[in-house]
Amino acid sequence: MNSQLRHTVLPSGFKASGVCAHIKKSAKLDLALLYSERPCVAAGMFTTNMVKAAPVEACIKILKGNKPVRAIVANSGNANCMTGARGSKDALTTAQAVASELALEPYEVLVSSTGIIGKFLPMEKIVAAVPHLVSSLSQEKLKSAAEAIMTTDTFAKIVTNSIKIGGKKVSFAGIAKGAGMIAPNMKHATMLAYVLTDAAISKKALDKAVEEGVTSSFNSITIDGCMSTNDSAVVLANAAAGNKLISVAGRDYDVFAKALKMVCLELAKMIVRDAEGATKFIEITVRGVKNSHEAKRLALSVANSNLFKCAMFGSDPNWGRIAAALGAVDSGLVWQKMDIALNGQPVFRKGKPVIFKNDGFLKGHLIEVDVDLNNGKACERVYTCDLSYEYVRINAEYN
Amino acid sequence: MNSQLRHTVLPSGFKASGVCAHIKKSAKLDLALLYSERPCVAAGMFTTNMVKAAPVEACIKILKGNKPVRAIVANSGNANCMTGARGSKDALTTAQAVASELALEPYEVLVSSTGIIGKFLPMEKIVAAVPHLVSSLSQEKLKSAAEAIMTTDTFAKIVTNSIKIGGKKVSFAGIAKGAGMIAPNMKHATMLAYVLTDAAISKKALDKAVEEGVTSSFNSITIDGCMSTNDSAVVLANAAAGNKLISVAGRDYDVFAKALKMVCLELAKMIVRDAEGATKFIEITVRGVKNSHEAKRLALSVANSNLFKCAMFGSDPNWGRIAAALGAVDSGLVWQKMDIALNGQPVFRKGKPVIFKNDGFLKGHLIEVDVDLNNGKACERVYTCDLSYEYVRINAEYN
Repeated sequence: MNSQLRHTVLPSGFKASGVCAHIKKSAKLDLALLYSERPCVAAGMFTTNMVKAAPVEACIKILKGNKPVRAIVANSGNANCMTGARGSKDALTTAQAVASELALEPYEVLVSSTGIIGKFLPMEKIVAAVPHLVSSLSQEKLKSAAEAIMTTDTFAKIVTNSIKIGGKKVSFAGIAKGAGMIAPNMKHATMLAYVLTDAAISKKALDKAVEEGVTSSFNSITIDGCMSTNDSAVVLANAAAGNKLISVAGRDYDVFAKALKMVCLELAKMIVRDAEGATKFIEITVRGVKNSHEAKRLALSVANSNLFKCAMFGSDPNWGRIAAALGAVDSGLVWQKMDIALNGQPVFRKGKPVIFKNDGFLKGHLIEVDVDLNNGKACERVYTCDLSYEYVRINAEYN
Repeated sequence: MNSQLRHTVLPSGFKASGVCAHIKKSAKLDLALLYSERPCVAAGMFTTNMVKAAPVEACIKILKGNKPVRAIVANSGNANCMTGARGSKDALTTAQAVASELALEPYEVLVSSTGIIGKFLPMEKIVAAVPHLVSSLSQEKLKSAAEAIMTTDTFAKIVTNSIKIGGKKVSFAGIAKGAGMIAPNMKHATMLAYVLTDAAISKKALDKAVEEGVTSSFNSITIDGCMSTNDSAVVLANAAAGNKLISVAGRDYDVFAKALKMVCLELAKMIVRDAEGATKFIEITVRGVKNSHEAKRLALSVANSNLFKCAMFGSDPNWGRIAAALGAVDSGLVWQKMDIALNGQPVFRKGKPVIFKNDGFLKGHLIEVDVDLNNGKACERVYTCDLSYEYVRINAEYN
């Protein structure tokens, strides 16, 4: 697996591009296109927010149809959310413009948007930019596409990977954007992420692999506990690798699913690293719990505690805030039996605070929180960041 | 009702005091005592956190006994939480020291603590301060007691009120501390709050009035969504007013319950006004909902959204964040039917964004968010504040 930006060659049969359509106020890339020369099996997971943006509704409808997909067009700078009938029409018009230029049907084109809620898309600008967007398509332009979906992100998030399945080389390339309004508690996805693969895989097998991959990656991160209206994770598989069709069981499936999961997890971690204002990367592991569901709820409660996140920003081992956040979850927790460690330093053990010298062991960029309830065998890990002045500044001034 | 600091005369038969026991690093008041010359009926509500501080466990046990209470001793600077057997013993020792000095039984004394989690109480200092604490008791010292329970609070929170019941004057005096780690989702209480009244009331009636009063006041505010381990709201009624005993039904009960609720609500609003780093006081009303439970969940989801709170800090009418937070709750919400207004300015109506000129209508201190789901008759209101640099600073440096 490789998350270096120089390795951005796409899997066989895919092309990408990113252009500036002037949707954003500044002259940055803001319209991305991912295209496959061959029909793709597609699977996706989307926000469970009751308020879904128009393009999310459109994608859900297309994927339900189980028909092949050929392209994804995504814009940043505007979420096309809470925009009513006009918003739905704008999403369709975008798909139509791209389909027309690529000689496809509109239902072969998925549409995504990210940015501010409640503003209408500048359709003239988008439609005008589509010919250039299509003519720019190239096997080397994945980075442009990754840049064009960025909002407050500070770097493009790209992960590539390749594996062998039945002697054939199968490749993956994923891009994502994150930065803010990132939260869990979605049965489905959490931000924009697209993974392209040249694997030959059945629709049923891809659906399963996507659900497994998203649960342990994008659904295991939280920046600010705020669930978005536009979260989408979509995987396209175009079969160009020529491997034997992967079905829902067997070794080929396992190898594929593991590789997809790794690509998703690496993208998810990049989102956390680039979270709005983050100065720390925090891994929270909760073990010794009755079941995985409870372990994840406990871990996410800590990950979403503002008080904990502020303490981490200050490199302050104020572990009482971890205990308070764990206790806020209705669970089998018995605090007297619990062990807590921070970066390997035990701070609470066997019902008692551990007296320790704070010699700045939380000063570094990485913080590992380890909680053991000593009450079962399940273990879950989630990823988050600290809460800083910069997060407040960015979100007080966002427009 | 009066929330001015100069009106701090206690109801008949009560005395208060606050001294510096050097529990805090700085030489501030940090040990408070509330005392009744007569036995009191007592009712209280406490945090539902699985991790409860030792004094909370002790109070719950005493109140379950249904015996009269005579005093409350409370310290700031240390939460006596996650302190194991030694913490329980320290809470008892504190009660014993106060009881001994006042010639009471230890079970007539309730104990509260607030401050950092996981540190042992400095018992020598506390025991040494008790004689001075008791000798300082006075009808005029409620403000000292209110100051002695402050942590990051910037002002003492005191509310007094008096009503007529059956021709007799019945008085109330309440104090509270808040500032941070304030959140809802507790069936019971949310911070430290004590209300003293000279009303004659049955235990059953007081229990009912306290539950009603706390639900619509302390359980309707949120500062940071962080549930504490030490939240306690206790009401003592000593019958010194000489009114006919108030029972669970009838006009006297209604008058009493309404007055208690007003005292609690005023204290709760003071907590929000003095929230850590707050620059805005925000009232969120959600109406047109199927039932009250759902209305409150929706309102609290907005109140706990970091993105919304940062936008308010920036006086930015970014109402999409309100919609996203509402949608994050699994509810009967249909966004196309919803109306949203900010300080009286409609921003979303009849399925469409309202085009409005932002001429700084959120620049003031008070922000009123009004959401109508147009889907039922229930309506709930909650209170919160914005999320500022100062909140982050305070909580990155708290010790």
